[in-house]
Amino acid sequence: MEKFKHYGVKNGHLYIGGVDCAELIDKFGTPCYVMDANRIENTFKAFNDAFVKENMLGGISYASKAFSCKEIYREIKALNGYIDVVSGGELFTALSVDFPAEKVFFHGNAKTYDEIEYAVKNKVGVIVIDSYDEACYINEIAFSQNLVQNVMIRINPGIEAHTHHYVQTAKIDSKFGFSVFNGEANNIVKFVLGKKNLNLVGFHCHIGSQIFEQKSFILAANKMADFYAGIKGLFNLSFDKLNLGGGFGVWYFNGDKSFEYGDYTSSVSEILSTVKIEFNKRNLSVPAVFFEPGRSIVAEAGITLYKVNAVKKIPDIKTYLAVDGGMFENPRFALYQARYTVLNPLKMDEEFTEKYTIAGKCCESGDIIAEDVLLPKTVAGDYLCVLSTGAYNYSMASNYNRNLIPPVVFVKNGKAYLAVKKQSYEDLVRNDV
Amino acid sequence: MEKFKHYGVKNGHLYIGGVDCAELIDKFGTPCYVMDANRIENTFKAFNDAFVKENMLGGISYASKAFSCKEIYREIKALNGYIDVVSGGELFTALSVDFPAEKVFFHGNAKTYDEIEYAVKNKVGVIVIDSYDEACYINEIAFSQNLVQNVMIRINPGIEAHTHHYVQTAKIDSKFGFSVFNGEANNIVKFVLGKKNLNLVGFHCHIGSQIFEQKSFILAANKMADFYAGIKGLFNLSFDKLNLGGGFGVWYFNGDKSFEYGDYTSSVSEILSTVKIEFNKRNLSVPAVFFEPGRSIVAEAGITLYKVNAVKKIPDIKTYLAVDGGMFENPRFALYQARYTVLNPLKMDEEFTEKYTIAGKCCESGDIIAEDVLLPKTVAGDYLCVLSTGAYNYSMASNYNRNLIPPVVFVKNGKAYLAVKKQSYEDLVRNDV
Repeated sequence: MEKFKHYGVKNGHLYIGGVDCAELIDKFGTPCYVMDANRIENTFKAFNDAFVKENMLGGISYASKAFSCKEIYREIKALNGYIDVVSGGELFTALSVDFPAEKVFFHGNAKTYDEIEYAVKNKVGVIVIDSYDEACYINEIAFSQNLVQNVMIRINPGIEAHTHHYVQTAKIDSKFGFSVFNGEANNIVKFVLGKKNLNLVGFHCHIGSQIFEQKSFILAANKMADFYAGIKGLFNLSFDKLNLGGGFGVWYFNGDKSFEYGDYTSSVSEILSTVKIEFNKRNLSVPAVFFEPGRSIVAEAGITLYKVNAVKKIPDIKTYLAVDGGMFENPRFALYQARYTVLNPLKMDEEFTEKYTIAGKCCESGDIIAEDVLLPKTVAGDYLCVLSTGAYNYSMASNYNRNLIPPVVFVKNGKAYLAVKKQSYEDLVRNDV
Repeated sequence: MEKFKHYGVKNGHLYIGGVDCAELIDKFGTPCYVMDANRIENTFKAFNDAFVKENMLGGISYASKAFSCKEIYREIKALNGYIDVVSGGELFTALSVDFPAEKVFFHGNAKTYDEIEYAVKNKVGVIVIDSYDEACYINEIAFSQNLVQNVMIRINPGIEAHTHHYVQTAKIDSKFGFSVFNGEANNIVKFVLGKKNLNLVGFHCHIGSQIFEQKSFILAANKMADFYAGIKGLFNLSFDKLNLGGGFGVWYFNGDKSFEYGDYTSSVSEILSTVKIEFNKRNLSVPAVFFEPGRSIVAEAGITLYKVNAVKKIPDIKTYLAVDGGMFENPRFALYQARYTVLNPLKMDEEFTEKYTIAGKCCESGDIIAEDVLLPKTVAGDYLCVLSTGAYNYSMASNYNRNLIPPVVFVKNGKAYLAVKKQSYEDLVRNDV
């Protein structure tokens, strides 16, 4: 049970954040997302500690697309963190709990004019530019507001981090960023420098997701140092900020590497140290550095609880456990064939003797949560728990098949509290005419 | 422009249901789903005409998981049709416009106890049983309500219709149904017949999606006739209903076969005729037959309108048009690598000279609407129109990246009216504590 050390087992029950899953099921029903706030805080602090250790300016900007609701912005605010937002909706949610706008990075390859206007008017810290058209919109809006907007430019350093092809983002044919290889990055810098209501404060890159190889980030830091040096040579300008994006890998199932809090500290420390060395080597002033972990802050902090509605044994082939959730609240198997660890949270003391495929309730064969998992013998009415569902589950949830989006419960210091209520049937037709 | 004959082009503008796309954009903004109600009605009637032609009982049950909102249930109600629902949420939406409960089929592999209770209490016409556990729940609830519930059983006839592997549903390892090959189908029949508060009225099968080969349905009709004969032999019972499911293919892009209204009539006629012949051949009374088209009723009736927020040219590689929609409102490329036809609805008279990839606004490389499509030269601020988006777009929409779900507009007899309002930022946090 070493691998479940962040949880806890007592009397055969799984505990998360000191709370018995039986209590969570009883109080909040199923399906239900549960987030361990202490673990979120500890992970965030572990990332942040690297800055203290290396005595560097900058900080951790939580990529809230991984998991966005009012409560998580309250958490990050309390931790004095920065956040990324990628839409007007994320920004609205953050501002609704008075998250400080100056600590917001606004990302996206296709921000709408309305979203940019909303961001500029609310004085977000940095807008990360991803197209010429967007640079024009921001400049125009800032001019009309009599403001100068701080901006970064998203650079594509051409690194292919080892990861699922869908989440590679730094290839030269990516929809994101401007490539360093074809002169496009230099061209957009010149263009932005020519806009009076834009203040270019530095550059951003993001090399992928689920990256377990430290060397990818080190390589990115090197490439960005080269790029800052090139820009200094071309325009005789220095920039005091560098954003190296996110993409730190997390544990989903047995095949994945598992990071401890200290691993994040040492990983980020090593990257920060590389930045210092590489910028110094090129006679550049060392910039404040930002990282944007999203998944790594929340994924492992989250679990989902389900009830088994039906067991279907297909003799000699497989046995399905059909649960009350599915691709409407966790589409990652359907989208990426993602793998998960599944437990029977109230039968933790029993032997894992049976092989099951966990099917969702959507009317679609691809609606699977996990294939061929070992569990104790499980019957209809039992409960299941899927680990590492804190990222890209609630944030990707839909009303597919008109299923209701489950509630989000936070656990903290042994207490559970509701962060997002379960949807109601009335919510489904609220906008119907 | 033969392929756009269901639309219309005037002064270089695309028309849908007699309404200028420019007017729709002006009035409802982008992104926006548009549904041609006349086309929905005509397709539904074409399916239904087969029953008149063949003088058969039964009818068309619209599989509302393809597209569900109040307005579509009003349409089907006005057409005197049946509907399928697959959740309490779909049933709630149908009942909220007084759709007659007796004309509802309730499907699903993992219906919750609450959903079954809701359906039984509201006296839905038929619940289609998909597990032993469910049979017990329905019986228990019907008993407690002092009712006898009409049920069918979902049979897996073992046919693999030629289609994308995700949407094959009749393979023996499917999460749906009971296979005719391993005795499981006979076992569940015996089990259900032993339940006093269940009234078994017939059997259901569904062999897949996007089926263009008529012979798949003919084969299914044959297999089901065999199955009814086998059941008669075993239990000396006849059943007066047969549900053959849906799965009729639709046109998405140039490579797809395009069905005319009359094709649906003749296709269903041929299947009905096969049922008559095959049941007579086996000395079985000919049952009332039901079909469950979903996609084929709504897919081609729908389009989505977008605004181009940014153009990004990657020299010698590709040019992206980044639109204000994406996988949050159409996840079918991300899920199934689905292909679509894209038009510039206000430049219909111009030559299709440029190749573009249409990217959504979500922060994910896989967020693509269509790859390598030919269009007239298109710039930021232009609009795009994607065809055949009426099925599994709105119904699968999410708030991924906290983007807002677009409005749904119906066009009918040359007039446009709002069916579902655009979400608001307030909707995003409505359930946040």
